[in-house]
Amino acid sequence: MLAWGVDVGGTDCKVGVVDATGRVRAESGFETPDDPEAAVREIAGACRALEEELGARIERLGMGVPGPLDLERGVIVHAPNLGWRDVPLRDMVAGALDCPVVMDNDANAAAYGEAWVGAGRGARVLLLVTLGTGVGGGVVEDGRVFHGARGLAVEIGHMVAVAGGRACSCGKRGCVEAYFSAHALSEQAAEVGAGDGDPRVHRSLFERYAAGDERIVPWLGRAIDVLAQGVAHAGVLFDPDRIVFTGGLTRSWDLYRDRLLAGLQADLGPAGPPPGGIGLTELGGRAGIVGAAGLALKRAAAGKRREARGGERVSGSSR
Amino acid sequence: MLAWGVDVGGTDCKVGVVDATGRVRAESGFETPDDPEAAVREIAGACRALEEELGARIERLGMGVPGPLDLERGVIVHAPNLGWRDVPLRDMVAGALDCPVVMDNDANAAAYGEAWVGAGRGARVLLLVTLGTGVGGGVVEDGRVFHGARGLAVEIGHMVAVAGGRACSCGKRGCVEAYFSAHALSEQAAEVGAGDGDPRVHRSLFERYAAGDERIVPWLGRAIDVLAQGVAHAGVLFDPDRIVFTGGLTRSWDLYRDRLLAGLQADLGPAGPPPGGIGLTELGGRAGIVGAAGLALKRAAAGKRREARGGERVSGSSR
Repeated sequence: MLAWGVDVGGTDCKVGVVDATGRVRAESGFETPDDPEAAVREIAGACRALEEELGARIERLGMGVPGPLDLERGVIVHAPNLGWRDVPLRDMVAGALDCPVVMDNDANAAAYGEAWVGAGRGARVLLLVTLGTGVGGGVVEDGRVFHGARGLAVEIGHMVAVAGGRACSCGKRGCVEAYFSAHALSEQAAEVGAGDGDPRVHRSLFERYAAGDERIVPWLGRAIDVLAQGVAHAGVLFDPDRIVFTGGLTRSWDLYRDRLLAGLQADLGPAGPPPGGIGLTELGGRAGIVGAAGLALKRAAAGKRREARGGERVSGSSR
Repeated sequence: MLAWGVDVGGTDCKVGVVDATGRVRAESGFETPDDPEAAVREIAGACRALEEELGARIERLGMGVPGPLDLERGVIVHAPNLGWRDVPLRDMVAGALDCPVVMDNDANAAAYGEAWVGAGRGARVLLLVTLGTGVGGGVVEDGRVFHGARGLAVEIGHMVAVAGGRACSCGKRGCVEAYFSAHALSEQAAEVGAGDGDPRVHRSLFERYAAGDERIVPWLGRAIDVLAQGVAHAGVLFDPDRIVFTGGLTRSWDLYRDRLLAGLQADLGPAGPPPGGIGLTELGGRAGIVGAAGLALKRAAAGKRREARGGERVSGSSR
């Protein structure tokens, strides 16, 4: 069985075809259009092109998108990075491709992918932490994504770590994301005159931190400590047996890992670090498409099991 | 169907018989013996006495016990309040009563009880916070207790809220439980010469706080803020639609509620408080026995469904 996996990002959109073992059989991508209807057309076009490339008929699609979402209605409530509000993307894509669509938060899709065939394989409870423009999180327990009541669960980036601290895009002060995220790091670098005006964060910033640059060390060290605190809170509350980091900022992982792990170790305390360890993504930028397709394949399999049981019951009662 | 529910506390042990609607049909209690084998004898004796009182045959038991536990092996790894280490209580009780036993953490059992027939009824995701000698937590999602990989999930009391803060019994510093728990409050009161030497915390302490006593307000106010922070972290990570507080310290809820809710409101942020609200236990001291019995009844029902399906399959294949 095959499924399309779609990862709708603030900049790029990735599309792939994934098989039941989690292997990516074909993939492509394009710049995410500003307009949702144009995005749907491009997604559908890319999906059909991959289908043709493989010469296979594909009948299900999974999609990871930035939130917050209304999972039940399949609506993107508000995606600041896309400038989208109240977009019923699930049904739009389902209509364009005439197939069932499973939609989830992008961090949840990536977490499901890593738990299924990536760095979280074999973990009972995986905590995935995404370090990109913002800070996100996803928890997968025994193959189930933990969504929370409103689909807002595991917002590691929006725990208030510093009372009255830095202003966060969410309206609160002192959130984890206001310290250690690409956006916050470039902002803090600019504040001390050490920025290069680029909203992306370059490895050079972490290199200067590691070299002891005194314009960088105080605030970047603190930002790492705040991230450690937030991840430790999630560790104490979810009790994962593995923690996996992913996202653009992990490209400089080697330069801040030691301080992050020391902070985590201290705050996780006597129960200790997760028995399965703390590490980096294995699927990298493909985690989203693999996980989204995996969620669609899982839904299809569950439907078949239900059908099989229903069929048994019906044939039983007719005898 | 009936089940025994047992709530093993540091001081008292409660035993009840609960029916499939969550009603307590009979109950009793006794002081928890120091010795685990004596405790098992007393539990079994109390269970048999209730069975006789009701004239019913009971064949399943659920038990909430202080942790940390090894859930798979049914072992109390270490219960400081009981002074017990590595006690295989589940099998000991199962042997004494010759029936299957479900054992869970006491906060989880209480959370299951409130979610089933108490203040968390109807919530998709319930977060229960226990404010007693220590601070504990439990999450129930769609009728399932969230355990984490090692059964250590939702230790709200052991998030480090204050870096380098007060020493906690767990060995870390600055844990939520080192500020707002009966133990920590009585310790802090003693430190400012405002204690009465009683390890229990009396309402009078909160009354003096509410009256503006300057020996109490600074540290107790801070303790409430730390608790608010910890609960808000859990709110941001689990996205519950209802938060319920229980435990001895909720007897003075009216005297610290306003400050606690204000702190929670601020730290939960734009997503806002849980849509189902924040409130107090409905089952009170019975939540443990009701929840534990509920877990045993649920296990029994799942077993029957499996059996029914297995039966179908077997009869199908023999035709």
